[in-house]
Amino acid sequence: MRAVDLIAKKRDGGSLNQREIAFLVDGYVAAEIPEYQISSWLMAVFFRGMSGEETGFLTDAMIRSGTVFDLSGVPGPFVDKHSTGGVGDKVSLILAPIVAACGVRVPMMSGRALGHTGGTLDKLESMPGFSTALSSEQFRALLNDVGFAMTGQSKDVVPADRLLYALRDVTATVESVPLITASILSKKFAEGADALVFDVKCGPGAFMKTEADTRRLAESLVNTGSALGKKIVAVLTRMEEPLGHMVGNFLEVEESIACLHGSIGGRSLSPDPRSADLMEVTRRLSAWMLVLGGVAATVDEATARVDGVLEDGSAWARFVRNVEGQGSSMEEVEKRYGTWRAPICERVPVPRAGVIHAIDAFAVGMAGVYLGVGRNTAADPVHPDVGIEFHRKRGDVVSADEALCTIYGHTAEAVASAREQITGACEIADTPWKPHPIVFDEISNLE
Amino acid sequence: MRAVDLIAKKRDGGSLNQREIAFLVDGYVAAEIPEYQISSWLMAVFFRGMSGEETGFLTDAMIRSGTVFDLSGVPGPFVDKHSTGGVGDKVSLILAPIVAACGVRVPMMSGRALGHTGGTLDKLESMPGFSTALSSEQFRALLNDVGFAMTGQSKDVVPADRLLYALRDVTATVESVPLITASILSKKFAEGADALVFDVKCGPGAFMKTEADTRRLAESLVNTGSALGKKIVAVLTRMEEPLGHMVGNFLEVEESIACLHGSIGGRSLSPDPRSADLMEVTRRLSAWMLVLGGVAATVDEATARVDGVLEDGSAWARFVRNVEGQGSSMEEVEKRYGTWRAPICERVPVPRAGVIHAIDAFAVGMAGVYLGVGRNTAADPVHPDVGIEFHRKRGDVVSADEALCTIYGHTAEAVASAREQITGACEIADTPWKPHPIVFDEISNLE
Repeated sequence: MRAVDLIAKKRDGGSLNQREIAFLVDGYVAAEIPEYQISSWLMAVFFRGMSGEETGFLTDAMIRSGTVFDLSGVPGPFVDKHSTGGVGDKVSLILAPIVAACGVRVPMMSGRALGHTGGTLDKLESMPGFSTALSSEQFRALLNDVGFAMTGQSKDVVPADRLLYALRDVTATVESVPLITASILSKKFAEGADALVFDVKCGPGAFMKTEADTRRLAESLVNTGSALGKKIVAVLTRMEEPLGHMVGNFLEVEESIACLHGSIGGRSLSPDPRSADLMEVTRRLSAWMLVLGGVAATVDEATARVDGVLEDGSAWARFVRNVEGQGSSMEEVEKRYGTWRAPICERVPVPRAGVIHAIDAFAVGMAGVYLGVGRNTAADPVHPDVGIEFHRKRGDVVSADEALCTIYGHTAEAVASAREQITGACEIADTPWKPHPIVFDEISNLE
Repeated sequence: MRAVDLIAKKRDGGSLNQREIAFLVDGYVAAEIPEYQISSWLMAVFFRGMSGEETGFLTDAMIRSGTVFDLSGVPGPFVDKHSTGGVGDKVSLILAPIVAACGVRVPMMSGRALGHTGGTLDKLESMPGFSTALSSEQFRALLNDVGFAMTGQSKDVVPADRLLYALRDVTATVESVPLITASILSKKFAEGADALVFDVKCGPGAFMKTEADTRRLAESLVNTGSALGKKIVAVLTRMEEPLGHMVGNFLEVEESIACLHGSIGGRSLSPDPRSADLMEVTRRLSAWMLVLGGVAATVDEATARVDGVLEDGSAWARFVRNVEGQGSSMEEVEKRYGTWRAPICERVPVPRAGVIHAIDAFAVGMAGVYLGVGRNTAADPVHPDVGIEFHRKRGDVVSADEALCTIYGHTAEAVASAREQITGACEIADTPWKPHPIVFDEISNLE
């Protein structure tokens, strides 16, 4: 078998079989096939696409390039959730304790902020002492005791993905649906998940900007899951304005706590209407995880269970046990709650009176990069105490000079750049805003 | 400027400007841009194509990657001919002396046989002592004195083409019209040609198999010539059966001599009707070279001059002067004429009685590779004295067991393999064969 013939086959619209895909992936990881052949194959895939079966072969070859996470000794089922990335997306922090409290274990391996999107690991680490570098023993123990554990990706899991992603990044082949699909699925299945729920986001703040592209990615995830014999539910959600009302690291931990629990340290927290979109997405994704985990027969039954563990405090109790179990302390978190803010603070007024029609999530995400919520390159540091608190959301009627948000940052320059971004992101009109549901479609391979 | 952004621009259907193309080519030659980025750009070019202007930028950047051949001191005009490669294609050997005899200098740099197509250098070197590794002084002197010179490509000319071609060969990006165009034109213009005539061949024995693809390449050559301010004529010819009746190295020298001259060493050579297609192509290409060189106003006037130098012996005289000038001897060539044949000889009969409808040139070319006319890889040796002499051509009415051709080879295995190829290549039918002109179109940027 010669790599050049496989490149030509894909270039001419053919589908590679399992042996052929494995030849390319194994050869690349073993440094037997040079990067210049792999990059030209990747570009051919960009133009020609891959069938669900072919994407399954790629995913499978990538999984087999490394070790599969060992969850032996922990009773299943294991269901994980993956989001394609958004702004203000703290769903994982709320969803994992909910699902664990309902009896489905969540082995969650998350990523860091990059570009305009935030990262679950960076948010978790804003809690003093919280460690996301768990050994596999610690991960298994927490998963067993608390029902969920949150960690970063191990270097040994799917080395093919790290190699391929690094090459795609410099050869303009990132934006290929089958390559994105295989990258996501290989990591999630190598981490031990039996079934997966996806939050496939759509809009200016998401990786996929149009409904058609979002649907294409969701279908590819589901079809490839079918090819691999795995159950997958893709929930398609809008990422037009930031999710909820906090964008930051500790700021997003605070919003998560408020959503999970009505009080903290004796202070009662009134339910915040600006978290409604966040909770709608969280409850829907959680409910599907219960269905996939086999603890509820229908999504309606599952939703009732989700609401039950939110009301009776058992989801909150799981959150607390996880925080303590991963090395942080609820006492320290409570001390900082509502007060831990970077020193330079600026109130940003709405541009004019009227109805807010848009708060562009991409621009807000970029404002977050200036402040240090996220990062431009993987080596940049992030700050726990910076971010943006929105006082108003889309659809709100505002008067002139009313506060749209408050920005917290460490330098005047960063705050000024963030303010400029956010002011430009806010569109005001004189007509009413017609709300549309944040969950706009669901695609799955369930019967 | 970043290579990844230029790859993405081409991937998304954009056109790169002169600075951007030069950035990629210069960076690649200087080993500053890695091969994996160039190969992914090449694959994007495969899918998206290039405008004539963009192909011109690429050609120009490639020419500037090395030295331009120095023809100073030799009076022009310099017009060269390039064939996209065929079987039995000995046109260059006949055309160069004709055009030189008419007063247009031909600085000819040729290639070697590869795959099923023959190579002018290999044919020339079958004449004892003939050297195709001329110094630039020798090349200039011969060009000045004889009016034409035949040499191999210098290593210093267009190094970008050698690098790009080697990468294309292993990344399935050879078959791209703009890349083929830039590869051909950069070499020809770096070799000092002022204007070019192309023999763009079409059919099973050619690189381009269909009329549509052939026309696409011809248009690309002409349009890119326009972008570079150079006059170009593309003559589109059929390469269905071998051109003429000899396929080999010295065998093709013999056919060329017979076409240029009615006698050799006192023996008269009767004009061979089986060279009619060869001479039709040669006369047409030669005539256009006279028009481009400014020594004839119309192609009809030019054709009359071509026929004149064939009849009056002045083309033949140029051939003789070149043979002696490049280190061979007409005495040695005459001695071998008609007798220098490899020891194993086999007469191949036609498959049955009827009318010959096809002698597939690709299969005949592959038969030549078995015999050692050509080579599979650039390192294989070739034999001067092997090949195939056809006694019959397409359209001939044949009786059962009549000889189609005679094969000459050095081993019984090679001859047997060649016979099998050729027998399979010959199609006999009971209906008459309707001849169609070998030159089927002409495309140029002349006014």
